[in-house]
Amino acid sequence: MSRFHAIYHVRCAAADVAARAAALALEQSIEMPLAPVTSDYVRDEIVARVEGCAQIAPGVHAVTLALATATTGGEIGQAMNMLFGNCSLQDDVTLVDVALPDDFLAGFRGPRYGLDGMREAVGAGSRALTMTALKPQGLPSAELAALCETFAGAGLDIVKDDHGITNQAYSPFAARVAACQAAVRRANAATGGRSVYAPSLSGGPRQLREQVRIVHDEGVRMVLACPMLMGLACFAELVDELRCPVIAHPALGGASRIAPPLLFGRLFRLLGADATIFPNYGGRFSFSRETCEALAHAGRAAWRDFRACAPVPAGGMSVERVAEMIDVYGRDVCLLIGGNLLAAGTDLPARSRHFVDTVRRLSSAPQESAR
Amino acid sequence: MSRFHAIYHVRCAAADVAARAAALALEQSIEMPLAPVTSDYVRDEIVARVEGCAQIAPGVHAVTLALATATTGGEIGQAMNMLFGNCSLQDDVTLVDVALPDDFLAGFRGPRYGLDGMREAVGAGSRALTMTALKPQGLPSAELAALCETFAGAGLDIVKDDHGITNQAYSPFAARVAACQAAVRRANAATGGRSVYAPSLSGGPRQLREQVRIVHDEGVRMVLACPMLMGLACFAELVDELRCPVIAHPALGGASRIAPPLLFGRLFRLLGADATIFPNYGGRFSFSRETCEALAHAGRAAWRDFRACAPVPAGGMSVERVAEMIDVYGRDVCLLIGGNLLAAGTDLPARSRHFVDTVRRLSSAPQESAR
Repeated sequence: MSRFHAIYHVRCAAADVAARAAALALEQSIEMPLAPVTSDYVRDEIVARVEGCAQIAPGVHAVTLALATATTGGEIGQAMNMLFGNCSLQDDVTLVDVALPDDFLAGFRGPRYGLDGMREAVGAGSRALTMTALKPQGLPSAELAALCETFAGAGLDIVKDDHGITNQAYSPFAARVAACQAAVRRANAATGGRSVYAPSLSGGPRQLREQVRIVHDEGVRMVLACPMLMGLACFAELVDELRCPVIAHPALGGASRIAPPLLFGRLFRLLGADATIFPNYGGRFSFSRETCEALAHAGRAAWRDFRACAPVPAGGMSVERVAEMIDVYGRDVCLLIGGNLLAAGTDLPARSRHFVDTVRRLSSAPQESAR
Repeated sequence: MSRFHAIYHVRCAAADVAARAAALALEQSIEMPLAPVTSDYVRDEIVARVEGCAQIAPGVHAVTLALATATTGGEIGQAMNMLFGNCSLQDDVTLVDVALPDDFLAGFRGPRYGLDGMREAVGAGSRALTMTALKPQGLPSAELAALCETFAGAGLDIVKDDHGITNQAYSPFAARVAACQAAVRRANAATGGRSVYAPSLSGGPRQLREQVRIVHDEGVRMVLACPMLMGLACFAELVDELRCPVIAHPALGGASRIAPPLLFGRLFRLLGADATIFPNYGGRFSFSRETCEALAHAGRAAWRDFRACAPVPAGGMSVERVAEMIDVYGRDVCLLIGGNLLAAGTDLPARSRHFVDTVRRLSSAPQESAR
């Protein structure tokens, strides 16, 4: 019977880890004591097994469980339930890695477009992509659209909504999307470019269906969504309904209980994120450089036939760090700079063009002509 | 303009808290530096404000922010985004409490049935309710149904699926629900009782719609759902579609980044959970007694016209602790005991009846006759 390994980090004394690991295995499978279970099938094929415990630091142990694939029901919500449902309630456990098995993965298609599909959408050859965000929320749709036109006019590949701009009274979704789409069309007509506007999708299934309809009707060519806010299974269905690339945002994803490379890299990619925004090291957030590199690797590494999910390092980035980021991440990346462009005030167009030009200069293949 | 207070606990040095709080206020509203914002409306009405910082322990500070209600768009996913979207990625912050304002709350109905509606469903007068769980997953539907019939025959008010039993190959939803519903009907016919079977709903919107249809077709009278797995807005819509009470399970809800009384008590109640399962102190989980009492209070306290959400202390409870739990929680509670009943092996019916009888004896109003 198919099993797969999940690695947890457990905080406890070395003398306690064997018992703790055994309890974790029960919690994440049958959720009851083993003794009363009389079914051989359940004992042999369903109960999770402890495959190993290794102390990795004083009071911290890597525990490997072998979970039965059948318990996932082939569904991502239930897979998360078995991986981290109950033990998320226990503050001594973090979920670090999962080696999802082929029979589970066969039910997923991964990114529909991937990094290369996003490049194609904006005519970016093989260089790194540039992204910015419409901010601040509270501006009326007309002003967001004007900002959108400015950014697209400066050559930014992707102008997304700030993830906090959803369907509020000051910029309701339908009107905002129409205005920003028109703005980006005007900018592209003026520059000959192919910048895209990516609105932020939100709400429950009913609101999302309505927003997908508007997105398709308005000819929107990319969207932003927050998988942990809407629910992973809901996100997977959304990807299925959409006819354009999807950028995932890590809102509500947590700092460390589920390792960022696993959640924002591997799992978001599995569910169909074509790009994954994450807090870059040295910004407003506290992810380490190692974590960020592991996240980018999870997004891009060869994995079955899944397309690459573009890493989007973000969170307080600046134009001054572009060279460093291209150095660290290479050209298979989308750089997101929001507040730092807006901070330029009236110099916003110039700083935006500087961002765009720097990325092109540092990441275009030599034979690609400048646009 | 309407604002509401959110209280965070921030870990930092006292010398840093003013700056940290100011940064948090920006992160949870405009998500950009304040200086470039020229709009008076955004500065005055949208940017979150720091209302206070108070050191509550060495290196821990309670920071109160006043968020603009308009930023929530009146929608729970977006409210969670503004409350804890980005700062969930920062490991020095926890969300402790929120005083949601009336203009936001007016968009929610809370529990459709509440504790009293659940009592009515099972004919429980004003006593405490009894709940157990079908376990382990891996058993075929016929065996789960037999167990269901045994539990209902012993007088358990509610027999729910283990939250890990969803739609796996060994007990697919439709067949399992049909079998368990028939089982509980047989038991009720034999005892004259009104026990209910509560299946576990799961998956994305498509699967949930199908499961709701089956639930209604089969005459199921109560269900279980995991709001954090399916997404809060998705859960709210599910409650809207259902014609029976909903028990919420805290899977994937985390141990402490969002305070349990707020998440599993207040917010689950707001979205329509008629009962909320949580890990009781002294069981397999680490919630303190204080946390559990605060959670029960959040579920039951008078709050606008919202019905009470029944607290369901669980997670390794035993029949031996019934008296203690009725003493701590009173009779406005539903006691959930799973593994401890199954551990009785062949004595399961007797231990189940003992559980049922003890709860009735200790929590029935004197004038209520024994059933």
